[in-house]
Amino acid sequence: MAQDFSATTGKPIDCKAAIAWDSRKKLEVTTVTVDPPGPGEVRVKIVATALCHTDAYTLDGLDPEGLFPCILGHEAAGIVESVGEGVTSVKPGDHVIPCYQAYCGDCKFCKHPESNLCISVRAFTGKGVMKSDGKPRFHKDGKPIFHFMGTSTFAEYTVVHEQSVALIDPAAPLEKVCLLGCGVATGWGAVFNTAKVQPGSSVAVFGLGAVGLAVIEAAKRAGASRIIAVDINTSKFAAATEWGATECLNPRDYDKPIQQVIVEKTEWGCDYTFECIGNVQVMRAALECAHRGWGQSVIIGVAAAGQEVATRPFQLVTGRQWKGTAFGGYKSRVQVPELVKDYMAGATLLDKYITHEMKFDEINEAFDLLHSGKCLRTVLTF
Amino acid sequence: MAQDFSATTGKPIDCKAAIAWDSRKKLEVTTVTVDPPGPGEVRVKIVATALCHTDAYTLDGLDPEGLFPCILGHEAAGIVESVGEGVTSVKPGDHVIPCYQAYCGDCKFCKHPESNLCISVRAFTGKGVMKSDGKPRFHKDGKPIFHFMGTSTFAEYTVVHEQSVALIDPAAPLEKVCLLGCGVATGWGAVFNTAKVQPGSSVAVFGLGAVGLAVIEAAKRAGASRIIAVDINTSKFAAATEWGATECLNPRDYDKPIQQVIVEKTEWGCDYTFECIGNVQVMRAALECAHRGWGQSVIIGVAAAGQEVATRPFQLVTGRQWKGTAFGGYKSRVQVPELVKDYMAGATLLDKYITHEMKFDEINEAFDLLHSGKCLRTVLTF
Repeated sequence: MAQDFSATTGKPIDCKAAIAWDSRKKLEVTTVTVDPPGPGEVRVKIVATALCHTDAYTLDGLDPEGLFPCILGHEAAGIVESVGEGVTSVKPGDHVIPCYQAYCGDCKFCKHPESNLCISVRAFTGKGVMKSDGKPRFHKDGKPIFHFMGTSTFAEYTVVHEQSVALIDPAAPLEKVCLLGCGVATGWGAVFNTAKVQPGSSVAVFGLGAVGLAVIEAAKRAGASRIIAVDINTSKFAAATEWGATECLNPRDYDKPIQQVIVEKTEWGCDYTFECIGNVQVMRAALECAHRGWGQSVIIGVAAAGQEVATRPFQLVTGRQWKGTAFGGYKSRVQVPELVKDYMAGATLLDKYITHEMKFDEINEAFDLLHSGKCLRTVLTF
Repeated sequence: MAQDFSATTGKPIDCKAAIAWDSRKKLEVTTVTVDPPGPGEVRVKIVATALCHTDAYTLDGLDPEGLFPCILGHEAAGIVESVGEGVTSVKPGDHVIPCYQAYCGDCKFCKHPESNLCISVRAFTGKGVMKSDGKPRFHKDGKPIFHFMGTSTFAEYTVVHEQSVALIDPAAPLEKVCLLGCGVATGWGAVFNTAKVQPGSSVAVFGLGAVGLAVIEAAKRAGASRIIAVDINTSKFAAATEWGATECLNPRDYDKPIQQVIVEKTEWGCDYTFECIGNVQVMRAALECAHRGWGQSVIIGVAAAGQEVATRPFQLVTGRQWKGTAFGGYKSRVQVPELVKDYMAGATLLDKYITHEMKFDEINEAFDLLHSGKCLRTVLTF
């Protein structure tokens, strides 16, 4: 039976949330006030949220544009509680995945077949506020709390722009498909949309966290015949092999650069290489072991602020291509529901990325776990 | 009537050539001995040769792998004088364009639809010798003289590998189509093959020498609706406009980086950008004014040894693609004859790139002219 949200419609909701008061401080799990959605906005009851490295990156103060205090979180799933004026695409009770990469269907980027970088609400989500009035919908004791990535899913209720909610199959388990809000979808999309990996090709994947494994999964589904997994943490090799890697390499086992090792092993490099860490030196290595003549290297990881990638231009002149991807190139509202369908059809390894399940109150422990490198994804439920 | 080469077949030929005895020295126009072609080789009587910046770059000592003494030159056209054992694709009297980028049709790169980086003779041309015996075919007073780029067209006769000669229409004027051996073809190919410029798109071209103008010409033929030409030498703007540029910019007229100027003028950057200089800072500028979401930036220029290109990875993650091209991606022996056909059909501006015609003996003056930036191409004839 559908949940009845009529009691809260149009009213502020006091609920549980994890506030990041400042960088390098533990989150405070406390009560926050969530305003009703304004025009073009949707208030979502978050059922499950995972943690992603971008949350940790911002909390660690590595994003110079990070705004505090804020409510982090961007990999989640929930149920629409109420909608603001003019919202027509979702209604209370709908199951949704909040998407940090919005989709309006109308801007230059949404209309372009090769881009998902919708700009409809970007200027506002970047400032931690909503488009209709330039203000946040979160408050604590009268003090405004900024939104994060247009999603802020570390709260029992959040308010997002209509352009940022993907309507999904209500039968999908929210505590599983929440992962499709970021990392796993990003890895898949890098393979299917950005690189367009072809059957029989060779692939190298640098970094074997959830994103790297998602790349391996998708490369295998795309028919790649050779998948080289690279990490300095050999404890990740078992999962990489289980996911589909055909060989695993630890750069520390060699006295020459890993790109040289891979070029020698493959004769000319791999048809596709993926950087899933955010380390600019690894980005360079990934490019330089892309196949001479046509190899593509895709940057997925987010580098620390101010860092630069570099290489000799000869690497590009001899046919390598350097690319990047954001949310795997998926047009979020259109394609996330399709990813949910794939999951429901049993076509994905999604469940396997969830290594830990915890209660929302344990969110700081979940961050510790993320930093330890011992988990793929921890899903928190309220 | 066909020329009769029977008198020289199988014998060494003493002929005129310009020897580069060492870097940073003037060429010596003198007599050199050219051995008969070995197995799989072709001796070509050079009728016309142009000068290209890569010749100057090597002569100036900027290529640490440059070998001296050598005979430079790689943009030429001529007539087959004799062929070595096993050569079947050309015969004496055939008109040919020597191609520094070989094509064997049989290696991994020739067989790949997206690459022209044939490796059949690359290891030998890089060392200035011929594949059959690892020796050069040029001598002066008994001293061996190295080949250059597998072409060495600054000589009345040269010996090249069979994989390096493109058979062309004998009706084509050799003193014109010689330009198709490098720069102009490279610019065209960067547009048609590497970037695949689409009708209605926007293009920025950095550097308005012969290669930059060839990019403009091809972009216009491809239907680009906006072509922004960029150079710090405003004397080049008239030609750029004549070739098809819709606007010309001098970076020195602005107090902000040129990439920012172009992003602002175009709102989000250009669909395609081309670096035609070999300056790593300009390569960065070109990338950074490629359109967010899908813009491609193609490196054509050859950077000085050891220099690196750099940018923030965010530029790639937000959808820009960094590529490069060598000989415009043309599979030389297959496609250079097609370019000659296009020229014969009047479909190109090829004649307009020839700003100077000189006798071969004036080759040092021609280099001075190249360095002055006042010529596009000088064609030398014997």
